[in-house]
Amino acid sequence: MGKNIMEYETVDLDDEDLSVVIIDQTKLPGTVDIIKLHTAREIWDAIYLLKVRGAPAIGVAAAFGIYVLAKRISEEDSIKNADGQGDFEIFYRKFKEQKDYLNSSRPTAVNLSWALNRMEEVCLKAGREEKKPVEEVVEILHREAAAIKEEDIRVCKTIGEFGLGLVKPGDGILTHCNAGQLATSKYGTATAPIYLGQERGYHFRVFADETRPLLQGARLTAYELHASGVDVTLICDNMSATVMKNGWVNAVFVGCDRVAANGDAANKIGTSVVAAVAKRYGVPFYVCAPTSTIDYDTPTGDEIKIEERPAEEVTKMWYKEPMAPEGIKVFNPAFDVTDNELITAIVTEYGIARAPFKESLEEIRRKKEEGRKKGRKE
Amino acid sequence: MGKNIMEYETVDLDDEDLSVVIIDQTKLPGTVDIIKLHTAREIWDAIYLLKVRGAPAIGVAAAFGIYVLAKRISEEDSIKNADGQGDFEIFYRKFKEQKDYLNSSRPTAVNLSWALNRMEEVCLKAGREEKKPVEEVVEILHREAAAIKEEDIRVCKTIGEFGLGLVKPGDGILTHCNAGQLATSKYGTATAPIYLGQERGYHFRVFADETRPLLQGARLTAYELHASGVDVTLICDNMSATVMKNGWVNAVFVGCDRVAANGDAANKIGTSVVAAVAKRYGVPFYVCAPTSTIDYDTPTGDEIKIEERPAEEVTKMWYKEPMAPEGIKVFNPAFDVTDNELITAIVTEYGIARAPFKESLEEIRRKKEEGRKKGRKE
Repeated sequence: MGKNIMEYETVDLDDEDLSVVIIDQTKLPGTVDIIKLHTAREIWDAIYLLKVRGAPAIGVAAAFGIYVLAKRISEEDSIKNADGQGDFEIFYRKFKEQKDYLNSSRPTAVNLSWALNRMEEVCLKAGREEKKPVEEVVEILHREAAAIKEEDIRVCKTIGEFGLGLVKPGDGILTHCNAGQLATSKYGTATAPIYLGQERGYHFRVFADETRPLLQGARLTAYELHASGVDVTLICDNMSATVMKNGWVNAVFVGCDRVAANGDAANKIGTSVVAAVAKRYGVPFYVCAPTSTIDYDTPTGDEIKIEERPAEEVTKMWYKEPMAPEGIKVFNPAFDVTDNELITAIVTEYGIARAPFKESLEEIRRKKEEGRKKGRKE
Repeated sequence: MGKNIMEYETVDLDDEDLSVVIIDQTKLPGTVDIIKLHTAREIWDAIYLLKVRGAPAIGVAAAFGIYVLAKRISEEDSIKNADGQGDFEIFYRKFKEQKDYLNSSRPTAVNLSWALNRMEEVCLKAGREEKKPVEEVVEILHREAAAIKEEDIRVCKTIGEFGLGLVKPGDGILTHCNAGQLATSKYGTATAPIYLGQERGYHFRVFADETRPLLQGARLTAYELHASGVDVTLICDNMSATVMKNGWVNAVFVGCDRVAANGDAANKIGTSVVAAVAKRYGVPFYVCAPTSTIDYDTPTGDEIKIEERPAEEVTKMWYKEPMAPEGIKVFNPAFDVTDNELITAIVTEYGIARAPFKESLEEIRRKKEEGRKKGRKE
């Protein structure tokens, strides 16, 4: 304890020490343990064991990780040819080995392979196509990893700006699970409006659902908001109706794992319960979604497969003693789908989509394409 | 383990051994510990420490308890006069001391004082008014305690019969918290339709909300239904929308702590969340309420004061390690009020009340009065 989590970034690079620096999230909230990952094995373990979690944060950790390993490979004598220069193809073979190894740490995390593939493309372009020296390729990898992190921060911050326009100073905000800074490089998605508001003296009163069974709301969201000085109150998931009925909540912000083309949104289990309660009490319900989570190939939420997880997460995981009868049947879906009609708006880094979502999400797609074209011209 | 909880009654009397026999609910679900309470101190402790809980069960335990103590007093030489007969006034003074002591174990539990007052009235009527010998007074106390238990069972069973008429074989039923056998003498209130259906081969599929923070659903409801052979599945409170959206739930049955004259119903925290979700998915929501819980002097739910409990129940109680940051603000209301418009029907031992509840609950009151008059005539 003693250390304030907000003094640290969720994922960072120590270039002098050639290591990826993370907050070990498995030890939160009891201990703030900042750890340095030097070797491929250490990086792999950190991702596999959820020491770093949250799709965007995993992507950034992998990008920094493969850069660190590339830099170390570039310094090995074994890749140097007769005149002491690095041989790109030998370097690349070793780079690829490490990339594939890191990619095996969490095969289902989209951002992991996305970030590693992006690093590999840059590597091949600079070294094989443009024949740049290995040292320069490594420097380009360094810049690319930093760019991935910067983009993540920019996307979250832009979502925060759009989200902030939906609330006013002094508002009560309820959030579910952790779509916070600990899941991204900075700001988070659902928490981005809260952090930006905090920077600007909005004095929000935030309610964090504890989020059973894995308690990400209690362990991570309540933790990071509390550490950053936000007025946060922890509640159990079944208390949302009470705080809304009491008039304490002006808006709900949640993250999401996948948004279907019609606006149905898959997110941590319980999200759709909050949405139904918010509808009942007339509280606007906002889904914060980087455009990377919008899946235009999935027509509706009905096509989203929901992962079921082990019973032990519910009956044994955190407890001192058995909390349920031995052998009891447990249903433990990790996510649920919130029907688009319960969603007031979907907040992306390209603007705010409202019903009818099929049309408004297409408009977001057009804006993104335009932004990319403009970006390429500049 | 090994013992099946359904072989035992929640509260029983061992008249040979002069003791109150209970299942120690603080050890559930890990251990089924049947304990015998012989002394006033043991009975007091069992109520105070929640070894026996649930308003009806506490009432029955107190009634058996004061009978056991009265019987023991009646055998003391100190209450006997010169010709060896018991002196009622000496007996009563000691009886009253013990009654007041038991009554101090949980001062807020209405059924505790209600049952003890009823026992005292019977005692005074038989001993002081009718001048019956002490031995006979004690026997009358014995019968009265047994009657209190029988009435509790009859009320629950009747609620079960009415509730059973609202569902059909094979239905899915969701319940929240524990309004089960462990809270009453037998059948429970919300679980009464389930147990009666079980006796008659209805093959319900039951979903039990775990009910944070005290986990009565996981520890007690899932436990007692599982032990009685009911097909029960434990879920976290935030999974109700998923099971309802999946079409697995045909009815929700919950208990209640107080029903206002307009049908607003206070019950364990989270009940109103289930009600809002049930409304959203078109699932009927039934409140099982012995008429003793209908408070005609409270016009609406707004006048029901909601008890707030310590933060530690949410952050520390069951956990191996800290689940929330030290010093985090927690809101922990023990109950919530479900708006009458979310309630499909209120099931009492005098029939089923539906909207408009003000009128239908008055009708229930009339039926109860008629039943009493008829009972007195017979």
